[in-house]
Amino acid sequence: MPRSAVDPAEVGPAEVGGAAVDPAAVGAAEVDTVTEVPVAVVGAGPAGLMLAHLLGRAGVDAVAVDLRSRAEIESTHRAGILEADAARDLVETGVSDRILREGHEHEGTELRFGGRAHRIDFRALVGASVWLYPQTEVFTDLADARARDGGTVHFGVSDPEVLDADTDRPRVRFTAADGTRHELRARYVVGADGSRGMCRGLVPEELRVRHGTEYPFAWFGVMAQAPASAPELVYAHSEHGFALISRRTETVQRMYFQCDPDEDTAAWPDERIWATLQARVAGGDGFRLVEGPILERTVLRFRSFVQEPMRWGSLLLAGDAAHTVPPTGARGLNLALHDVKVLAGVLLRALGREGEPALADYQPLALRRIWRAQHFSSWMTRLLHTAPGASPFELRRQLGELDSVVGTRAGRAYLAEQYTGWPSSR
Amino acid sequence: MPRSAVDPAEVGPAEVGGAAVDPAAVGAAEVDTVTEVPVAVVGAGPAGLMLAHLLGRAGVDAVAVDLRSRAEIESTHRAGILEADAARDLVETGVSDRILREGHEHEGTELRFGGRAHRIDFRALVGASVWLYPQTEVFTDLADARARDGGTVHFGVSDPEVLDADTDRPRVRFTAADGTRHELRARYVVGADGSRGMCRGLVPEELRVRHGTEYPFAWFGVMAQAPASAPELVYAHSEHGFALISRRTETVQRMYFQCDPDEDTAAWPDERIWATLQARVAGGDGFRLVEGPILERTVLRFRSFVQEPMRWGSLLLAGDAAHTVPPTGARGLNLALHDVKVLAGVLLRALGREGEPALADYQPLALRRIWRAQHFSSWMTRLLHTAPGASPFELRRQLGELDSVVGTRAGRAYLAEQYTGWPSSR
Repeated sequence: MPRSAVDPAEVGPAEVGGAAVDPAAVGAAEVDTVTEVPVAVVGAGPAGLMLAHLLGRAGVDAVAVDLRSRAEIESTHRAGILEADAARDLVETGVSDRILREGHEHEGTELRFGGRAHRIDFRALVGASVWLYPQTEVFTDLADARARDGGTVHFGVSDPEVLDADTDRPRVRFTAADGTRHELRARYVVGADGSRGMCRGLVPEELRVRHGTEYPFAWFGVMAQAPASAPELVYAHSEHGFALISRRTETVQRMYFQCDPDEDTAAWPDERIWATLQARVAGGDGFRLVEGPILERTVLRFRSFVQEPMRWGSLLLAGDAAHTVPPTGARGLNLALHDVKVLAGVLLRALGREGEPALADYQPLALRRIWRAQHFSSWMTRLLHTAPGASPFELRRQLGELDSVVGTRAGRAYLAEQYTGWPSSR
Repeated sequence: MPRSAVDPAEVGPAEVGGAAVDPAAVGAAEVDTVTEVPVAVVGAGPAGLMLAHLLGRAGVDAVAVDLRSRAEIESTHRAGILEADAARDLVETGVSDRILREGHEHEGTELRFGGRAHRIDFRALVGASVWLYPQTEVFTDLADARARDGGTVHFGVSDPEVLDADTDRPRVRFTAADGTRHELRARYVVGADGSRGMCRGLVPEELRVRHGTEYPFAWFGVMAQAPASAPELVYAHSEHGFALISRRTETVQRMYFQCDPDEDTAAWPDERIWATLQARVAGGDGFRLVEGPILERTVLRFRSFVQEPMRWGSLLLAGDAAHTVPPTGARGLNLALHDVKVLAGVLLRALGREGEPALADYQPLALRRIWRAQHFSSWMTRLLHTAPGASPFELRRQLGELDSVVGTRAGRAYLAEQYTGWPSSR
């Protein structure tokens, strides 16, 4: 039977994959395998795996499932900026120290506008830094750590279902990649299955509050085979629109430029992409991007979104399953990792002596940062993009704002603090 | 004849009211009096009078004219917050030191939202302060100083006209309060006649660029006979809308609350006003306004506006004649005083050896602060008001922003720096 409360102190080393039970004996003849486990996690991206890792470290088993194969997740390029706290957590909780060897610590970033570069010196302004380390690497480290630590992760599942989420015996059923039918009998189910996942929709319609806004632009993302053009990220605002110059490796660079959400990548040969990017970073200082073959082109749409409540019965939502932000400002992954850090603590309390009432702390603890990050992501987006149809007043006000932000220490510190994460969480 | 260039060093003490000339002898028989003066100022509010004062101190005569009587200007309530620099300028340039005796130095302000007070400590954050000293008092000090120093100011004029502004012999004609017809023959004419004045319209249509935006709310302003409810200004954001609690004297308080631009003051008996204000400042801390009879009620509409160029030929625009800001953040008067400080310096150079080319510096020097202030005023307005029809996302994002601003030192400093004026001007 599922344990309704597990005191971490009473739990020994994680039982590998939870406790297997005879399906027939527990009235679940229609599945091949029934596993009892304190926490079932739907979604094995960085949020789901980090949660499973944190729980596992405390001796609480969590089984994660994902529709995607490991290879599929590893080939989906996403954000590449981690807050220093998140980077430290990867190392200090024993996921991996690879970020220290292969990641790049950035102590600042560059804002370009009016044809000039304006550096935001994170270290000097707020004593913080960020790490350039692609999300796919974070995922790989976490997936490797789960495998190393004996945590069960089912990649490539199909037909996942969450049952009885409003009771204290929720279940997750799915067909594993090998075709066998599984049922996880959990005390809690965590929905960490992203913005297109099924978990957010499990909260009954009449209880769901969905806050969101759309933006009249998307990002045209490219991978370019070229050396880096700048030592740190460059966020460029120009009359032609926004551009972001990031990097992937020593020889492959990640760049984005503002485009129409319906832009067709086929209409963008290499020359046109480079001309667009160069125009957006051009300036009196002669800064130019080092060009090279474009390896990949994608249009990335985005929006701001938050769903409440983040808990319904025994279901808890974390990361993109509960909220998404525009990519400007690189909050998405960091926010998801903050959610699961808070959630791991709350779940350990709930599974221990405190019981279910502990869950009430999750949403308030997570939401404060979520709304700060929603504001910051929305603000950075509006600050740096050129809105189609913006009035001349708005365009000039925007330059006045950029000047207010970069032109004084207080403005730079305000941006730096939000970009590197808030000190309240340290 | 008008002097086309006057070296301040060559000019003696200001000639009272400029040099009178026989109208018939200069071909202006249709006026009673012709006066030659280096600078004619259209508009004798704080901006126009401060400019005349600054020029007068440097020995350059400036005659100012205004449609309004002195009593009329003195009875129009306006902003009451002066940057410390502006307050110091009033004292140090010899206008008056009354502000030091009758004004109140505020080292911070209070933001209220979510039912709580959040103090922004200007002194601790950015080493600055502001002075509470009503604009009408600034005007009185300046008008008294002009009278004391022998500067000519024509209040209550009618039919003012600016002629030949695009030549180097611009003229200002008007009928004085006593019915006599005057002509000022100037080298430069300054338009400091506010947002509804005629000067901004003198710039030919094809050269004018007007940037602006409207807001879907206005301020309902009241004067209340009551003691002060708080030692500093209180800017309140609530789900019901914005309110600002300021003060006029020990016994008369100035308060505002967000209203519809078409609100009818007749529909607002005292009880309704107090209920509205109390609801907007209410909180868990039990804060309440001290009530008393409402002495005055007005609806104040506002918008953001900038006109360029700020110079056309021999005409220069300053203060509200060139730009207006929403009242949130109290930038209007401060920005006007900054304009004329810059303009006085430029005019002295232009009237001296450097000549007309010096005028080219005015707009760039003024505009940087103007656009920062435009941003700040627009930002403070959006940060604190509740936009009619705002989406739930927007309302929550706004709370996330308020939390980001008051919740960290960097956020508070960013607000404080803009509210107290920018260090670059110090």
